[in-house]
Amino acid sequence: MIPPTHPRYRSLVARERLARYAAEGIVSLEGLAAHGRGEAFDYLLGERTTESALLAEKVAAALMRGAERPVISVNGNTAALAAELLAPLQENSGAKVEVNLFHRTEERMQKITRLLRDHGVRVEEGVAERLLPLSHDRALCLREGIYSADVLLVPLEDGDRCQALRKMGKTVITIDLNPLSRTARSASLTIVDELTRALPHLTTFCSSLSGEEAAVLAESFKNDYFLEAARDTMRRGLLHALD
Amino acid sequence: MIPPTHPRYRSLVARERLARYAAEGIVSLEGLAAHGRGEAFDYLLGERTTESALLAEKVAAALMRGAERPVISVNGNTAALAAELLAPLQENSGAKVEVNLFHRTEERMQKITRLLRDHGVRVEEGVAERLLPLSHDRALCLREGIYSADVLLVPLEDGDRCQALRKMGKTVITIDLNPLSRTARSASLTIVDELTRALPHLTTFCSSLSGEEAAVLAESFKNDYFLEAARDTMRRGLLHALD
Repeated sequence: MIPPTHPRYRSLVARERLARYAAEGIVSLEGLAAHGRGEAFDYLLGERTTESALLAEKVAAALMRGAERPVISVNGNTAALAAELLAPLQENSGAKVEVNLFHRTEERMQKITRLLRDHGVRVEEGVAERLLPLSHDRALCLREGIYSADVLLVPLEDGDRCQALRKMGKTVITIDLNPLSRTARSASLTIVDELTRALPHLTTFCSSLSGEEAAVLAESFKNDYFLEAARDTMRRGLLHALD
Repeated sequence: MIPPTHPRYRSLVARERLARYAAEGIVSLEGLAAHGRGEAFDYLLGERTTESALLAEKVAAALMRGAERPVISVNGNTAALAAELLAPLQENSGAKVEVNLFHRTEERMQKITRLLRDHGVRVEEGVAERLLPLSHDRALCLREGIYSADVLLVPLEDGDRCQALRKMGKTVITIDLNPLSRTARSASLTIVDELTRALPHLTTFCSSLSGEEAAVLAESFKNDYFLEAARDTMRRGLLHALD
């Protein structure tokens, strides 16, 4: 048991949760290692939502609000960390939710779908087709889901897939703690924040933004600004020992 | 299969190896997440041994050469990543090797001991006693091994244990990619480098250093310099997208 007063309580609880879901086969072992990589960058951010990340979250909400066919793509790590945060976001944004795995097996697809439904998420169903410009099973998605989306939220996404979705002309929003990753640099909008801090902000902004404010935000942002701001915060984080 | 020409070949191979050993029960799931955290810092270092890290490796060899009872403490991640690099280091440094696990079970102790012996390492045997100033089984070690050591090499070590060993008056050398960690800041000497790059350098320096050079190096180093140099390299890494 980790005491809630521990200074890194949230981070330690998240890691325990991921390890438990890895033992259950929901999180892949590669996903667990990737989570650790994210932890390091979060540590340099000070494990908090920065001002610039909060603005990125507002812009993301604006993009989702303005979308015609918004879709949230959910992988194992996202489901494990944030299943209970997705139903409110789906409610407020009107987005479809599709499970999409990098290490795809039928068993993992089913386990993750069940986990999401247990938390009130409406998960898209159908026969996946090879519709993305990627090799092997990484091309699989639903024709009426990710393939048809105009705005996609793909938290914790792989770089190749992010680039493929961009090439298809989609607006891709990612949540990624590494501002140097290919995902972060190829997305239309990158939220450099920890997933479970970011999603509730997105949910709130989806309902609180006025239509006018959303329209302005959706047109005026420059993703390079958000990446540079995160790198700058991390550089300052490295000047000081933090824990 | 990862092609050897991939720019991040070593890093990807290491992660695959860790995931495989996690499936076998040699690496703990927490250890897998911790490896990912190390990956992020290595990425900021440029996945290479910096000049200052190479100097730290030389100082570490000098400390081990000058020790009366040097011991290398090996955990699951170290065994999984570097079993084949430990026998040559043991040969050149004259150090004992003791298995010491944070998530300790008899089964893991035996699996790791077997893995090391399969790679030619002479592993200390005996009945572990609660001799370290730590709670529960984290206090366990061998009286004639870690407890009696004057100089300890503890790669990838936990912060609490590193501090406990220091309080016992030991010279503690760690290998840790995070220059901000409690381990890095509480060790006598911190090598901020990736384990499988660092160990061969240590092995070479153990045999190539003259006695005179070793004596000077062992007395003259300042660990803060090595930590600050690593932080500085990482800050510069954050100025530029790297991959």
